[in-house]
Amino acid sequence: MTEIRHSTVGTRRPTGTLERHGPVGAQSDKEPRVADGQEAEALLREARASVDPELRSAMGSLPDSMRRIALYHFGWQHADGTPAEGNAGKAIRPALVLASAAALGGSGARPAAVRAAAAVELVHNFTLLHDDVMDRDTTRRHRPTAWTVFGDADAILAGDALQALALRLLAADPHPASASAATRLADCVVELCAGQHADTAMERRRPDEVTLEETLAMAEAKTGALLGCACALGGLYAGASDEDVEALDAFGRQAGLAFQLIDDVIGIWGDPGRTGKPAGADLAARKKSLPVVAALTSGTPAAAELAELYGVPYEGDEAELERTALVVERAGGRDWAQAQAADRMARAMQELARAVPDPAAAGGLLSLAEFVTRRST
Amino acid sequence: MTEIRHSTVGTRRPTGTLERHGPVGAQSDKEPRVADGQEAEALLREARASVDPELRSAMGSLPDSMRRIALYHFGWQHADGTPAEGNAGKAIRPALVLASAAALGGSGARPAAVRAAAAVELVHNFTLLHDDVMDRDTTRRHRPTAWTVFGDADAILAGDALQALALRLLAADPHPASASAATRLADCVVELCAGQHADTAMERRRPDEVTLEETLAMAEAKTGALLGCACALGGLYAGASDEDVEALDAFGRQAGLAFQLIDDVIGIWGDPGRTGKPAGADLAARKKSLPVVAALTSGTPAAAELAELYGVPYEGDEAELERTALVVERAGGRDWAQAQAADRMARAMQELARAVPDPAAAGGLLSLAEFVTRRST
Repeated sequence: MTEIRHSTVGTRRPTGTLERHGPVGAQSDKEPRVADGQEAEALLREARASVDPELRSAMGSLPDSMRRIALYHFGWQHADGTPAEGNAGKAIRPALVLASAAALGGSGARPAAVRAAAAVELVHNFTLLHDDVMDRDTTRRHRPTAWTVFGDADAILAGDALQALALRLLAADPHPASASAATRLADCVVELCAGQHADTAMERRRPDEVTLEETLAMAEAKTGALLGCACALGGLYAGASDEDVEALDAFGRQAGLAFQLIDDVIGIWGDPGRTGKPAGADLAARKKSLPVVAALTSGTPAAAELAELYGVPYEGDEAELERTALVVERAGGRDWAQAQAADRMARAMQELARAVPDPAAAGGLLSLAEFVTRRST
Repeated sequence: MTEIRHSTVGTRRPTGTLERHGPVGAQSDKEPRVADGQEAEALLREARASVDPELRSAMGSLPDSMRRIALYHFGWQHADGTPAEGNAGKAIRPALVLASAAALGGSGARPAAVRAAAAVELVHNFTLLHDDVMDRDTTRRHRPTAWTVFGDADAILAGDALQALALRLLAADPHPASASAATRLADCVVELCAGQHADTAMERRRPDEVTLEETLAMAEAKTGALLGCACALGGLYAGASDEDVEALDAFGRQAGLAFQLIDDVIGIWGDPGRTGKPAGADLAARKKSLPVVAALTSGTPAAAELAELYGVPYEGDEAELERTALVVERAGGRDWAQAQAADRMARAMQELARAVPDPAAAGGLLSLAEFVTRRST
């Protein structure tokens, strides 16, 4: 892989100079950023290639009943058990583990961290299996979710088994960092559970009962924690100091929050030129996403208008959806989310510079962070 | 604690001489077994007293939202968060961990194994939380189940968090056996998941589609595996050889199967003199318990009659319930279950004698095995 230079990137996207209506890191005509995206994509491809054999081997150890559901969820089997050309996701978390290990320990530290990368990916997928049951989501990676195919019980059980498999991978790993990594990953699972609880609890509450602070805390627990954990595990496997491991964790968390903010922006105003979420999807679901809560708590006249709109369920009126998006924007929800995302990315960069002062070594992590804050799918 | 002598017990309940209609190890007038029951009860009390502080400390580390559900499930808090005089269960699994450690490593090995005992208890309770959601069971330990109080999502999340907590306890334990113990416990979780899957899948099938072999395999995975794992973990923490650890696992599995067989007998014919399951409860639920499947697959005329009775849902006719119990008995289901239970206990004794040749050292495990096969509540 080619590593981009830290300082160069710093010049290209200084903090606080985001375009008003583009996601963080959106490309401008003057400064094509193709190289960065390509590096991130190469890192993701490499991570997928390294981690998949470990994942397949771990899943191969499952009893038939559990393996079938797990392989379906990963997109490696159809519901009838025949092989499928899988879409197991973008492997962002494994890529972060491996890039962190390489950043702190050199490229030689990468192979030893593959097991940790697989463990993080298994935890991510266990939470997806369970979240889909709880949220009654019927589609994941363009396929019917596991619970719609196998039923709630089997989706819950397969999730349980994947969590066990994740922690087993680390427990059985003779690497000196495996115990600290397992402890950290287990702590992260608890935080993910609390984050999902907060999310479902908030969605049940009235729009005026939700604060911005708790919405940010929920997003950090639900999204930031595992990205932070992935980076921390890479550091642990590279033999990094406690301080550097914490800085890597903080880097991943802040990048995760930036990602969530951008994802929420796209959930309202759409992802121009990409086949991501349709514009307005989150508004139609009356989701209390970050820009919406920022708007609701803005104290503006538009906030009251938004609270009224959110007080009744969406009934397919697209004009009303457009109006709602406009109201969120007028209440400052969009600007706030963009500024917050830029701020979180700036914090992420600070943490990264602390853990990995050498810009060349930090390049992989930087390009991954920029990648996740540029796309939603 | 007083330890009973292996040889004495051997004389008291030789293999294959079970009373026809009493559970395994039922007391006869000539040979009062009070002392054994008392020893087991003392071991259970001691286990509860040793493990509860560890469990409370682990749960104390949970975020508020998860802790509240976990403490409710353990009976340590009411639904409103106020303290409760808990009934956290009989602590059989922690007692097996501690008794195994003491049997293989002397009483000095016991304190070091408390964390492993807590981990096993956390795994047990995580599976209860999830099983109750899947089985729609509304009562557990005489209280409403967690999902009926907090909803499915929170019960699933609290279960997830307890699994993480269990494996975290071992990952963070500096004891030299902790990594092998964590690996084994994670493998056990996978087996428990497969067992619960098999159970729910079998309950959905037609009575004539279920074999006795798969019902036994399901019971071993669902009940035997964790009892075996508990004993194995105690052995690991006592520094036992691989061979002894495997023998302890087999002992726990066989004792667990004996327990399940007796529990199933009680689920049909009741538990005389105890406040356990009402007679006929499993028949009313048309449950394919071990005696029922033995009867269904017996090739007797009564088997056909039973298949017909099981083909229609129970509608509150108690006379029909009594007739069904009689049909299971006529088809040989009761005798088979009693004989199987005796056989499994004999195998358990063989495995125990292999791992712990000194009868005095094996006394604690023996009394616990006899205890679980005598009661159902």
